[in-house]
Order: sequence, then structure tokens, then C-alpha cells
Amino acid sequence: MIERYKDPKIDELSSDKAKTQRWQDVELAVIEAKTKLGLAPPNVYEEILVLWTKNPIDLEKWYENEKASDHDLAAFIKERKDCLPPELARYVHADNMTSYDTEEPANAIYLLNCLQLVFKQIDVLHHTLRQLAEKHRYTIMNGRTHGQEAELQSFGKRVCTWLRPIQQVKEMMFFIRNKRLNYSRLSGAIGNYSGISPELEKEALEILGLVPYVGATQIMPRSNYMPLISSLVELMGNIANIAIDIRLGARSGRPIYQEPFKKTQVGSSAMPHKKNTIKTENSAGMYIMGSNFATMLQQTMVTWEERAIEQSCVERIAWADLFHVVMYALKTITKVLEGLEVYPDNMYQEIIESRGCYAASHAKEVLVELLTPEGLSSEEVYRIVQLASFNAFEVPKLRLGLRKRLPHSIPHAVTALVTMGIVKPEPIVSIQTTIRGGKLRVFEGLEATADQVKAWNIALKTVFGHQSAIDKWNLIFDPTWLLRNESYIFNEVLGK
Amino acid sequence: MIERYKDPKIDELSSDKAKTQRWQDVELAVIEAKTKLGLAPPNVYEEILVLWTKNPIDLEKWYENEKASDHDLAAFIKERKDCLPPELARYVHADNMTSYDTEEPANAIYLLNCLQLVFKQIDVLHHTLRQLAEKHRYTIMNGRTHGQEAELQSFGKRVCTWLRPIQQVKEMMFFIRNKRLNYSRLSGAIGNYSGISPELEKEALEILGLVPYVGATQIMPRSNYMPLISSLVELMGNIANIAIDIRLGARSGRPIYQEPFKKTQVGSSAMPHKKNTIKTENSAGMYIMGSNFATMLQQTMVTWEERAIEQSCVERIAWADLFHVVMYALKTITKVLEGLEVYPDNMYQEIIESRGCYAASHAKEVLVELLTPEGLSSEEVYRIVQLASFNAFEVPKLRLGLRKRLPHSIPHAVTALVTMGIVKPEPIVSIQTTIRGGKLRVFEGLEATADQVKAWNIALKTVFGHQSAIDKWNLIFDPTWLLRNESYIFNEVLGK
Amino acid sequence: MIERYKDPKIDELSSDKAKTQRWQDVELAVIEAKTKLGLAPPNVYEEILVLWTKNPIDLEKWYENEKASDHDLAAFIKERKDCLPPELARYVHADNMTSYDTEEPANAIYLLNCLQLVFKQIDVLHHTLRQLAEKHRYTIMNGRTHGQEAELQSFGKRVCTWLRPIQQVKEMMFFIRNKRLNYSRLSGAIGNYSGISPELEKEALEILGLVPYVGATQIMPRSNYMPLISSLVELMGNIANIAIDIRLGARSGRPIYQEPFKKTQVGSSAMPHKKNTIKTENSAGMYIMGSNFATMLQQTMVTWEERAIEQSCVERIAWADLFHVVMYALKTITKVLEGLEVYPDNMYQEIIESRGCYAASHAKEVLVELLTPEGLSSEEVYRIVQLASFNAFEVPKLRLGLRKRLPHSIPHAVTALVTMGIVKPEPIVSIQTTIRGGKLRVFEGLEATADQVKAWNIALKTVFGHQSAIDKWNLIFDPTWLLRNESYIFNEVLGK
Amino acid sequence: MIERYKDPKIDELSSDKAKTQRWQDVELAVIEAKTKLGLAPPNVYEEILVLWTKNPIDLEKWYENEKASDHDLAAFIKERKDCLPPELARYVHADNMTSYDTEEPANAIYLLNCLQLVFKQIDVLHHTLRQLAEKHRYTIMNGRTHGQEAELQSFGKRVCTWLRPIQQVKEMMFFIRNKRLNYSRLSGAIGNYSGISPELEKEALEILGLVPYVGATQIMPRSNYMPLISSLVELMGNIANIAIDIRLGARSGRPIYQEPFKKTQVGSSAMPHKKNTIKTENSAGMYIMGSNFATMLQQTMVTWEERAIEQSCVERIAWADLFHVVMYALKTITKVLEGLEVYPDNMYQEIIESRGCYAASHAKEVLVELLTPEGLSSEEVYRIVQLASFNAFEVPKLRLGLRKRLPHSIPHAVTALVTMGIVKPEPIVSIQTTIRGGKLRVFEGLEATADQVKAWNIALKTVFGHQSAIDKWNLIFDPTWLLRNESYIFNEVLGK
Repeated sequence: MIERYKDPKIDELSSDKAKTQRWQDVELAVIEAKTKLGLAPPNVYEEILVLWTKNPIDLEKWYENEKASDHDLAAFIKERKDCLPPELARYVHADNMTSYDTEEPANAIYLLNCLQLVFKQIDVLHHTLRQLAEKHRYTIMNGRTHGQEAELQSFGKRVCTWLRPIQQVKEMMFFIRNKRLNYSRLSGAIGNYSGISPELEKEALEILGLVPYVGATQIMPRSNYMPLISSLVELMGNIANIAIDIRLGARSGRPIYQEPFKKTQVGSSAMPHKKNTIKTENSAGMYIMGSNFATMLQQTMVTWEERAIEQSCVERIAWADLFHVVMYALKTITKVLEGLEVYPDNMYQEIIESRGCYAASHAKEVLVELLTPEGLSSEEVYRIVQLASFNAFEVPKLRLGLRKRLPHSIPHAVTALVTMGIVKPEPIVSIQTTIRGGKLRVFEGLEATADQVKAWNIALKTVFGHQSAIDKWNLIFDPTWLLRNESYIFNEVLGK
Repeated sequence: MIERYKDPKIDELSSDKAKTQRWQDVELAVIEAKTKLGLAPPNVYEEILVLWTKNPIDLEKWYENEKASDHDLAAFIKERKDCLPPELARYVHADNMTSYDTEEPANAIYLLNCLQLVFKQIDVLHHTLRQLAEKHRYTIMNGRTHGQEAELQSFGKRVCTWLRPIQQVKEMMFFIRNKRLNYSRLSGAIGNYSGISPELEKEALEILGLVPYVGATQIMPRSNYMPLISSLVELMGNIANIAIDIRLGARSGRPIYQEPFKKTQVGSSAMPHKKNTIKTENSAGMYIMGSNFATMLQQTMVTWEERAIEQSCVERIAWADLFHVVMYALKTITKVLEGLEVYPDNMYQEIIESRGCYAASHAKEVLVELLTPEGLSSEEVYRIVQLASFNAFEVPKLRLGLRKRLPHSIPHAVTALVTMGIVKPEPIVSIQTTIRGGKLRVFEGLEATADQVKAWNIALKTVFGHQSAIDKWNLIFDPTWLLRNESYIFNEVLGK
Repeated sequence: MIERYKDPKIDELSSDKAKTQRWQDVELAVIEAKTKLGLAPPNVYEEILVLWTKNPIDLEKWYENEKASDHDLAAFIKERKDCLPPELARYVHADNMTSYDTEEPANAIYLLNCLQLVFKQIDVLHHTLRQLAEKHRYTIMNGRTHGQEAELQSFGKRVCTWLRPIQQVKEMMFFIRNKRLNYSRLSGAIGNYSGISPELEKEALEILGLVPYVGATQIMPRSNYMPLISSLVELMGNIANIAIDIRLGARSGRPIYQEPFKKTQVGSSAMPHKKNTIKTENSAGMYIMGSNFATMLQQTMVTWEERAIEQSCVERIAWADLFHVVMYALKTITKVLEGLEVYPDNMYQEIIESRGCYAASHAKEVLVELLTPEGLSSEEVYRIVQLASFNAFEVPKLRLGLRKRLPHSIPHAVTALVTMGIVKPEPIVSIQTTIRGGKLRVFEGLEATADQVKAWNIALKTVFGHQSAIDKWNLIFDPTWLLRNESYIFNEVLGK
Repeated sequence: MIERYKDPKIDELSSDKAKTQRWQDVELAVIEAKTKLGLAPPNVYEEILVLWTKNPIDLEKWYENEKASDHDLAAFIKERKDCLPPELARYVHADNMTSYDTEEPANAIYLLNCLQLVFKQIDVLHHTLRQLAEKHRYTIMNGRTHGQEAELQSFGKRVCTWLRPIQQVKEMMFFIRNKRLNYSRLSGAIGNYSGISPELEKEALEILGLVPYVGATQIMPRSNYMPLISSLVELMGNIANIAIDIRLGARSGRPIYQEPFKKTQVGSSAMPHKKNTIKTENSAGMYIMGSNFATMLQQTMVTWEERAIEQSCVERIAWADLFHVVMYALKTITKVLEGLEVYPDNMYQEIIESRGCYAASHAKEVLVELLTPEGLSSEEVYRIVQLASFNAFEVPKLRLGLRKRLPHSIPHAVTALVTMGIVKPEPIVSIQTTIRGGKLRVFEGLEATADQVKAWNIALKTVFGHQSAIDKWNLIFDPTWLLRNESYIFNEVLGK
């Protein structure tokens, strides 16, 4: 991974230093286990431990050895043995151990350690989302489906829908840690224990905090890691989902929220007025990378017979890079959420300008109830609410002219722009009023004749002659009523 | 492909009827070629042709034969031979032909025919885009980068940027047709011409409009089709790109355009007010499918030795389905573009409300020129324009209060909403005025002290004391000047 | 999915009939729940149930309705309501239910049902593998790493390494079923329960065997299904792994096993002698398809705000097709394994011809022990075993000539072929004998001088002068010793 | 990319040094163009050139600047301007240039330069393949389909089938270079030339060896690079295809070729006898990585409106890494092919042991001709050749016993192994003899009664009573005849 996107802790875990340290841990665990099982004299483990602690791994020597042998693990063993007297050295990587008897448990520990870092970062994100949800428990906004304003919700509730899948994926990762990543093997060149015995494997792995996977070949089946890979993609998808919602809400004109912007920040080199959504766009790019690093790993699942080495080069690169982008995405979205600028006034303005349509579905339900006795079908009721909504967004004539007569030159376009500047803002009329008052108008874009519309208006006036109907009607436009069940969501998701 | 997304012509080409017809064409071409080369008596071709024309392929018999032999091509040959007398039948699929000697040229023809349908549909899309570009040659709007309003452009110009990549991909497809798809082979079980000779292959393929690919095995190398696959993905990506721009512009609040909506359409079953962007969202889904059908095909590129059959099942499904989704995406986006509802008034309103920021980058350039002599650095100039822009979007106190004091209950939220309803719309002040008048104000979100701002205002007043500076200044806010070079784009892209 | 690869039961579950039946089940569950909660008169549920049972869903009417409304769920509701009197009809899909309040629980049930079919088929495969493992508990063969003969194992043990990952993936699928697939939601257009209450959701889902997912939007977050998708890919990868091992073992020359071949089968239309590995190659193609259907679904994880519909078209196709290919792959590999022709004699012949190399790693260990006192380094010991192995495969002069002098014409090639025909088969000499007897020879391809080799031979003769050394030596070539720990694997994997 | 797999030249091109050098080249080109077009005083270009040559880019200063501004291009411009006097500095990155006006042409040059390196490496591979093909022009071997021996070919011909697709992909890459990569743009923040004019863009790009892409936004459409991406995957697929053929041929037992093995090499740390196919397995891993780096890039094709920045992080990583793995794969496969150990004797032995089946398809053809007059159907002829083939591979009784009676303990397995050691090798009888002599035998695994077989033998004896039939028959087993058309392939592919 390039510097810009590296996570320092993942980088440390992925370093040669950490890798060879893990290899040494495995070698030591095997020797310790042998001592315990009486397969080696009691002093051997302690003495090797002392000497290796005194002589830490010399990476330069290791690199030199590898140049000669072209075999990294063998080069490492040589370096380690060289600082031991022969009578101790013979216990190192003995019993017909193959490279992967050392590398596989080390790899398991690497993945467990990386996952631990991910867990910690998830917790920070979780905390941030929780705080944001609570802060905006009552900040009301339009929910949107298909980019269109739909119904009312609080912004806190939207945050809850961001948070819940994060909880889910963490639960899954715990299961994976305990049912997949804790497994490893130490069973020889083809996994038949012709050298190391099952007892020794068990003992050595236990020292390392692992349990034997019985039924391996020279390596763990790569399918063992598929759930981890998939859960990391799931996590990144969840982050990308939050990111896209923020990008969409941050579109200029009337942003409802924006990424944090530093007092000294340069938004764009050319255009000083801009506050670009660079962090959330970056999250989208990170998700693309993460899912493809994951696919690389997935595509090495199939291995010829007792093993082949296609997966080796892929794993050298893709695991670390996958963890780097996961961590980067986690940290980036957390930073965005921590500093998120929220504009409740714009959220309210959006609600006002949506002209009561946020209650359109409830309006339809109430009208079905009121107008069925008047002989109107539910299809007609649907059309009434639809017509009222379209009426609500009709534009004044001057504006309609601009819409219909397109400019035929730039100067003409400038004139149109100036004209638009003097169009008086139309007053905002809610469908609540139009429908209640029976003030529907024929609309070009909807199939309804003047007679039909007239009849509908009469029916509306009739039913709304009764106060009870008006009360029922007004209720559904009241946010207090519309959001009455949100506390359930907060309680369940935030656990309070 | 399921009924809903099938293209009827692709479906016909992919049918068993069409497939076996192509197989027959190949068999006939070989026999005709043999006649021409004197490898068969002169009458053989004509007589078989007559008999096969009289007895069209009986698919039911074919299915029956296949049940017995488990081999589709062998079953077909049997069906065809059965309607010939033995003295003719012996010329059919003779000379040690393998199944793939028949299937490969047939497959080449299938791909060429499908591509031809794609070409036609691209032409319709091209025409539609061209008309839209011309229609909106002077409809001005804000270009957006990172979702933020950037500079001015005409909508026609945006359409040109949608159109140009379509032209490119079509050019690429022509090259692929002529340099890849026209190849096929008829060279026996391992491609060494131990049966059919190179001369016969050449003659037969020529009859079919194809040329020999020398250096094949039993099959064409699947790498031959990679460019076609990739170009279809490229095309779908281009369509998805148009689609997402439309989705983004169609967000409710102030849509600049919308997908066509029928007079009798039901936008949403629950919410009658909605005009959902279902077609453009569908284009995104189609792109996902298309690119993965493509990946399926790409992943069969590697074949063991002289051949294996991993690719067979994939190709039975993925080629047809890839073409179906390509056609569907082409037709869908064309329909959307043909009926696109464009709202120039909203585009103008957006420009007005962007408060002159569309010229922010030019403002910076002009101010550098004007203020450098006054001793201001270009970094300071940048801050001036940035500050003016942020000043332009400052909100009145009442509104700021709503922003800072979040509701702590739903009734409180309702009060906030009501308050927002009575906030008077702030007058729109362009950065053109603020800067020219030296009216910058200190702004919390930007690092600039009162003294600095004061000094800047003085400098601005000084330089704008000269009419020439004012003229230069006003020019950059004039769309006539800003869009002066767009005609070049129209000429080059639309070829006029 | 095309006919050829369809699973009839998956097809039935994916049919319009089954889909609308599930929709009806959801509608009924909501009505039943309302009755239970006192939100509808007690008789309503029973009466609707009776009438709907009498009048099963009329698909033709449904299709007709959809043509009119362009909305499949709305069309369905209309069809269902039409067979009810108005006083009952008003309880159907009421309370502001949106389409996805019906579709999401139905979808959950669909996935659960499909998974159930997968479970059953996994059990059949499991049983088949288990039987095969037990049958070949003692059939010894060479394990291979990197395509090279490595150590000895039983074929049963290889089968255990095929079986174990299948057990793992099934365990994972159980977890997914209980922690992911059992969730659904019924919470309205943006998931805020403005219509249906949390209580009603809970009751209705319970009737359907589901539990509420709190924190959804209009839809379940698609991330909820990622683990299922991934586990299906994992399963297909496991199958592909078995398939490739069979393909590799079935290569002609000396196959160790082959796919079943019917007495009347046609192996290849052109080449009658062939038994092609078509089923296992097909498994590779199926894996390619499966993993890409999975990626399609994965790529719809991100959804704009409270929902968008990109995933709809993808899910209509990819879920069913993914399950079809999973089932097909499961059934195909099971069929191959059930009828697998195993050739133990060829396995033995391979072992014999590997000239004792199967014990090379143990030989190295024993020699280190024996030769270290003689002053040989472990590097030298490695070279000794390597040289012995290379000596073991040296070819006679006549053959070496053929290797070095390449034919310069086809007739010359024919002569070479004839020459090869008269080369007497060299006697097979094991490294067991060469090393024990100190009979190493200088070999061109390995760096070791004549003096070195001489010295090594002397040392070997010395150490093998003792019977105890010979006994130790012979032991490591004895399969009884080499396979002594395999019973552990069988016990653990087969549970006995 | 990690050290192990880096290509030094790609690495150099991808370095910060090279990147900023390219940025400077673009800035200089713009200034030079302005001078040429009279938009800047004539001396400006020369003077800046001189000063910048004297003061090469100081990367440390650049890094420092970036820390302050968080904007890499702006930081670079500052560093470059700082070494110029103000009267020159004002011409740098002027005219409202955006970052991407500099970065896009620089990126085009980067891709062109990388591609140039790929071309050179392809040429080396091409040369190596060509030499190998010529060397083995007459080395005969079995072609294999589905892993099964099929017909005869020369090894040189197989190499031709490896070579041809490489030629094709290179041709495609040339087209891409000339029709895609040579394009770039310099058209401002949204691509409307509001700053830099079309004339200046054209002039500046021409100086850089590029041509204007008219119809861009702030950036080139990413679809422009899809064909390059795809062709690199195609190339890697071709390499992977060669690699897998080598892996398959190198399986121990009777390898027909092997990867080169150094005299001092350690094949496996544990197993000294091994020559693992590590390089060709690595090629498979590289292909996996390459195709996924490609997919990453493909997935950034769609960009919101006039631009967004999802692709930025992906491109920072994936382009360089894609080129690294392409180069690595090219160099690795070339090394393998240059040092490939070929064993013609084993190829001949394989042919001999395939018992004449290499001519089975021709045998069928000849027999159809000979036996049709005898009243045998072509189905019967097929069965005759099939039976002869299966007869040819029947094993002696002792061996059959081993096949049918599986060991029930390890000692029993050892006995079986010993038994196999004393089975006398059966004499090799070709189907040429069996059929010609009418010596077919009933075979359990094939449906043919004793009477049928008897009748077939009589018919065979009858037709082979004639010398002309015998001559015709023997001819088809003669490699001289079978390979008669290979020279055509060599001529066409190798161009001679």
C-alpha cells in the first residue's frame, strides 16, 4: 500500500520484523510443546528462548540468506539456528516440519491481530454514530426514496439505519474469529502427520492460542478465510453506504449536511468557493479497492491437490492491502461523521417546500376512508392526491414560458436568466390545504378531465364539511403523529 | 434471461432454431467449398441444399437424438443426415470434422449478428443524444464537480460529453469486428489440419464471410473475444454514466430534469406524489449485471492444452444475457432521453442562487492581476474569493439559531419547523457585488481577522475605483464570455 | 437459467406461482396479526382465508393488471382484492403498507426455502464423500504438491480433506440462517413505522417464522445477505476444488481415477477412444458463474438514502441463477463421486515409479542424524538426498540422445519414435537402495564434484555399516510407519 | 507493489520524481504554446526553461508544501513558482488552469510510457516463443483435449498456438495507443474552455505528442482507458494459458517438460527430490491480481456529473500495480520458456503408450468407408474403434484384482504395493493392430455382445484382406501424414 493510505498498525503487523517474530513464536511454541510432551529435554525450550531473546532476528542476515537459497522460510531458519549451539539448533524446525507448518499458524495470528485492530476501529465508529443519532433524535427531515422526498423522519433515525448493519457485521466477525480464524495446522508436507504428531500439533497450537484444523493438506484450505474476506467487504459496503448518503445530502444549492471543512482549508485549487465531498468520494474508491482485494483472495480458493502456490503472491499483497483500506475507510468515515456540519434549517426548508407531500400516503389512506362512501374508487383517490401534488408544484406563467421557449443564442440565454431573476417566488401551498379545500385544478401532465376534477372538488368539500374529518386530516400532517413510533427504533438500535 | 429484460431479436438469434440454422450454414459452406475445390462431385452441394431446404431442421427430433447421445452437435448431424440419401449424407460433417469445426464459425456469426443489433441501437441513442444536445445548445446551467456547483455550461454541452464516449466505443467496436470477430477456424480436433486442409478451411470460411485464424487449437483462443466483451462493458458504463447524471439532476426539491412520466402512470404504490427515477436506477443495475456477465466470460480465457470445456456452460448463458442487458440498457436510456423533461427555469434559479460563484475561479485570476500591485499575495486573493463566497451564503440570525439549537422533542421540532416557515428569504447577493464593493465580512468558519478583512476591503475599493477594472470584472460574470468556446465543442462532437 | 442447468425445485420456488403465494402468505399474516391484536374484527382473517383458498391466485389476471399499472405488486393486490367483498378487501394491504412490506418478508422466506434445498443436497454430497473416504481408507497413493509427487497418503485421507471444508461451510450456513435470514421488516415506506406499528410487525413476522430487523429503511439493508452469498461461493469453491483434483488425476497416460463413463456413452464425437472429464470441467464453469452471480448481488449492497431500485433487476435474476448453479454443481460433483472409477493399481505403480522419493524428507532427517557425527552439514545432507533422487531418474544413453538431438524433419521424428519404442525400460532403483549402499553418481544438473560425491558415498557406507542405522532407514520407507497417524484424521473428520 | 514483484522501470515511471517531472513538462508545454501563439512574450518560455533546468524539482519542499495545503498539485506549483521571479511566475499554471489540466496530460504520458515498456517485454517473449517453436518444429507429442491424449502434433505447433494470441493482443494495443492513449485535454474545471482556449490546448498537447479529446469534462472520461485495461488482462490471460500448459506437462511421473532448475537450487525445504512448478503457479497468481487491478479501474468508469474523485485513490494504486504484475508475468514466463527443459523421449513414450489412439478419429473415418459396404452403420464403426481403444488399455488379471479388491488395512496395502511391483508390464498393443487383425474382445465397460464383437471381427478381417485397405489404414497412423499440414501453421504464425 502506498504511504498515503497506509494504516501504521497494520503496516507494523505486516512488516518483515513482525512476520519473522511470528515465525519465531511458532518455532518456539513447537519446541515448548515438545518439552512438555517429553519429546525434548526439559532445558531445551528455556535455553533457546534465552538465546533468541539475547539475539533478536537480524533481518539483514535473513535477506542475505534468502538471496542464496531463494527460500524465505529456510533463510529465516538458518539465521535463527546460527545463533544457537548445534545441540540446541537440532531442535529447531525439526521433525520434518515444512515451511508451511511454521507459516500457517503465523498467518492465523496475523489475521487475528489485524482483525483486532478492525474491531477497535469499528468501536470508535459505533460510538460516533451513536452520539450523532442521539444528538439528532428530534431533527426532522425528509426521508428520500429514489432520490425523491418521501416521508418525514428524524435525522437520528437515518443514523440508526447506518448503525444497525455495523452492529450486525461485528457480530458476524466475532463468530468468524471463533469458528474460523482460531484454526490452524502443523501436520507436515501433505497434512498426514508423518512427522509432527497430532498430539504435538495440538499442544503447540494451544500455546499459540489456536486449535487444530483436522483435514488440512500442506496448508489450511483457503475457503476457511472466505467469511472473513466477505465480512470485510460487507463492512466496507456499509461505510460506502453512509458515505453516499452524505454525498447526496451535501450537494450544493441546499445542502442538509456537509463534510467538515477546516478554517484554513483549500476546497479546490481553481474554484475558491467550493467545499468538495472528497472524503466521502474517497470512501467509494476505497470500497472499490477493498472489494477487489477481496476478490483476489477469493479467487485463490481452489488449490491443486495437496497444494500449489498460486495464492502465495496474492496473499503477500492482498491481505495487508485489504486491511489497510478497511482501516482507512473506517477512519475516514468516522472523521467525517465526527465533524459533520448539519443544517437543520435546510432540512426544515426542504420539508416546507415539499408542500405536504410527505403525508401523501397517509392522505390517500384517509381519503379512501372518507370518499369511499361518496362512491369514489381507490384509483380515483390515488389520482386526487397525485393531482394535488402536481398542482402544488405548478409554476407561474412567466416561469412556464422559460421552460417552454428554449434560448436560441447565448444572449437570449442571458435574457432568460435575467427574467428568471425577476420571477416572484410563488407562495407555497400544501396539499393539505388544496385537498381539504377542494381546490384541485386540471393539470396537463395528468389524465383527468375538467368534469372529473370538478366532481372531485365537490366530494372533497362535502366530506370536509365535518370537523371530525378535518381533525383526522390535519393529524396526518403532524410530525408528532408521523414520528410517534421512532422511539422504538432508537430503543432497539441504541439499546435504551 | 427472464422475459422482463429480454431483447426479442437477441432472443431469436440465441434460439435453438437460429443456432441449428447457423450450424447448417457451416456444414453447407464446407460442402460448397469442397465442391469448389473439386473434393466432392459438383452436384453434391446443390442436391443437399435442395433437400435441406425442403426438410427444415426438426428441433423435436434433434432433442430426441440428444437424449440418446448426450451430445448436441452429434444429435444435430444425425437429424440432418437422416433426410439425405447415404450417397449425399457421407459428405456431411466428414473429413474428420469435430463438433467445434461446426460450432466455432457458427459462434463467430452469432456474435457478429448480435453486434450488428447493438450497432443499430447505438445509432438510435446517438441520434437522440445529438438532438438533445442541439435542442439545448443555449440552455445554461451549472456544471457540477463533486456535487458542487462549479462553472457555467450549457446543458447541450453536458450532452456532448455524454455523446462523445459513445462515438469512441463504436469506433472501437468496428475495429474489433474487423480484426477479431471475423476470424474463425475449421482445423480439426487439435487444430493441426490433420483432416480438413487449410485450403478447404479458407474456402469454407470465405463463403461464411469469415477468415481463418491460424494458430488455433480445437477452439478459437477465448482471448480473441476479450475486446468485444470489454467494449460492451465500456458501452454500458457510458450509459450508466448518463443515467447517474439524470438521477442526480432529478432529485426532488428543485429537479433540473426528470425521467418521462406518463399521464396515467403510478409513481409509487404508497406515495401518489412521487416521480421515481426507476429507469435510470435500473440502468445502474443493468451495468452491474453486464459487467459481471463480462467477467464470467473473461474468466474462461484460460483453457487447458488443446482445449477443455469449462467455458461451454458459461458461454451458453453469459453471451446471450450480456447482449440482452446491453440492448435493454441502450433502449432504456434512449427512452429516458427521448422523453426527458427539462426544467430550464430551475437551472436558471440554481445559477442565480449560486450567487456568482460560478465565476469564482475567474474572479481569483482577475483579482490576482489587480491586487498583486497592491501587495497582496495570491494566497490572500484566494482567501478573499473564498470569504466572499462564504459571506454570500451566510444565513440570517433566526435561521442560525435553528441551526445551532437542536430540538429536544418532537413538539419542539414542530416549533422549529414553524419558525423556519416565517424566516424571510434573504436577498441574494452575488460575490460580484460584495467583492467589487469591498464588502467582505469576517466569517467564523474561515481564518481571517477583522483587520485583515478590513485591509482587503480597502484594497478592493481602491482597485475597483477604475472603470477598466470594473469592466474586466463584470465581463467574467457574463455567460456570453464564459461560454464563448462552447461552439468548438459542438462543432467537433456533432460534426458541424 | 436455461433449461439445461435448471434445478426443478429452485425453479418452482422461483416461479410466479410460488412468488405470489408467498406474497399472499405475507398479506394473510398481517391480517391474522391484526385480528390477534384487536386491530381488525375477529372474523376477518378467517373469512379472507376461506375466500382466497377457494379462489387461488389467477396469474393471467395478474399479468393483465400489471400491463395496466406497470407495478407488479399493485397488480397482485388488485387481483386478490377483486375476489373479496369490499368490507373484507379494505383490510388487505392496508395501513399504508408499501410494496416492500409485502415483498421483503416474502423474499426472506424464498431465501430460507432455497437454502433448505441446498442443505439437503449438501447432505447427499457429505454422505457420498464419507462413503468414499471409508472405502479407500487404506488405498495408498502419492500426495502431490505443485503437481509433484510428495509423500504417501491414503486416497481416503485426500477425500477427508475434500469433506472437511464442506462441513465447515454448512456450519457457517446454519449460523447465517439463524442470525441473518430469519430477519425481515414491515415498517413502511421509509422504515419509520408511520403506518404499521412495531407490535403489528412483530406479530405478523412471527406468524411467518421471522423476527423484526429494527433499523431498516424501506428495505432490508442488502448487506444482510452478504454472508449467505459468500457462503454459497465458498461451497462452490469447495466443489471446484474437488473437481480439479479429479481432473488432474484423470489425465490419460496413467489415470488414478476417472469420472464415471456409461456403457453406451460417446466420449467425443470425433475421437472414439476418449473419456473426457466433462463433468469436472463443467464444475469449474459453474464456479465461475456462481461467483459472478454472487458479485452481482454484492454490488447492489449500496443503496441511496431510504432506498433506490438498482438491486431490483439484479435480484430478479441473480438469486435464482445463483441457487441453480449451486444445486447443479452439488448434484454434478455428487454424481461424479458416486460413480468414480478408482485405479489403485495405477496409484501403486506411481508410488513404485517415484523410486522412494515419497520418503525423501524423512530420509533427509535420518541422514542429518546419522551424518552430522561424520562431519557433514545439513546442506550436504540435503544435496545427498537431492542427488540420489536425480540419479534415480537418470535415463539410459539411448534415451538421453533422443533428449539432446531434436528431429529436424518429420521422418526424423518418426525414426526417433521408433528408437524410443526399442529403448529397454530401465530398472527402477529406489533412493532407499542408492543411499543406503553409498552409490551416488555425479550428475550434470546438480553442483557436486566427483570428489564430493565420493566422500559422501564413503560416509554413507560407514554409517550404514550398522544394522541399527539400516533398520531406522528402512522404517521411513514403510507405509505402515508413514501413515501411522492417518487414523486420527479419519476419526476427527468422519467422527468415528 | 511490494519489492519482490516490482518492475524497476515501472517503479521509476511511477515515482514522485517522474510524476512531478511530467507535471513540469505539461506546465512547460502550455507556456511554450502560449509563446508560440503570441499569448506570452517570446522570452518567457526560454527563461523559465533555463531556470527550472538549473533548479530541479525539490521533492522535500514539495512534501512540505503539501502538508500545509493538503493539495498535491497546488503544492507542486508553489514549489516551481518559488524559483522564478514574479514576472515569470505569473505565467505558470495561469489562465484558470485546474489541477487536472496538468494531471491529465501527464497521466496520458505515464500510460504511454508504461505501455512502451510492455511492448518491449512482449517483443522479448515473442522472440523466445518463436525460437522455441522453431527448435521443436519436429518434436512430436500428443495433443490433449480435456486432459486426454487426442491427436499428434509437434511441440512447435503447440508453441505457435501460444504465440499467435500474443501477436493479436499486441496489434490491439497498437490501435489503442493510437486511438485512445494519445488523447488528452486541457479544457478547464468543467471542460468548457472558459479559461484555456481550444487553440492553446491543441498547441500545448501537440508539443507533448498528444491530441485534444473534445467532449471531456474536468477529466478524460475513464471509459477511454477501458480498452487498455482489457488488453492488459488479455495479455496476462495469454501468459496464464502458457503457464498452465507448462504446469500440466510438468507433473511428475512422466513430465514432458519442466521449468528450469538451477544447479544449486533448493526445490522444497522439506522434500529434496522436488522440482516444483513455482514460476508457472506464480503466473496464475499474477493473472488473478492483474485482472482484479483491472476491475478496480473499470469500476471507476462512472463519474458524477462534471467529475468526482472516487477514481483518484484507485488510480494512484491500481495503474502502477497493474503494470508491475504485467511486467512480472511477462518476465517470468519468458524466463521459464528460455530455460524450459523439454523431454522428447517422454513425449515419444507417451505416444507409444497411447497405443495408436492418436489416430482414432481417422481410423473411424477410414472404417466408415471400408465397412459401410459391409453393412455396418457409422454408429457401429464408432463402437469398433471405441472397443479397440478400451481393449488396448485392459490390464492383466493380477492388476485387475488389485483394482477390485481394496486393502482393508495398511499392511494389506503394503502387500498390494509389493504385488504391483511384480506385475509384468503388459506388452503395448496398438489399435492399429487390433483392428486391422480383427482382434476385438468383449469388454465389460462397453455395451457390445459377444456375437456383435464376433461379427465385427469377421467384417474387419474381410476388408483388411485387401492390401489397398491395409495401405490406407497404415497411412493414418503415420505421423508424416498426420502432420502434413503443420507447415502451414508455422508459415503463417512465424511468417516464413
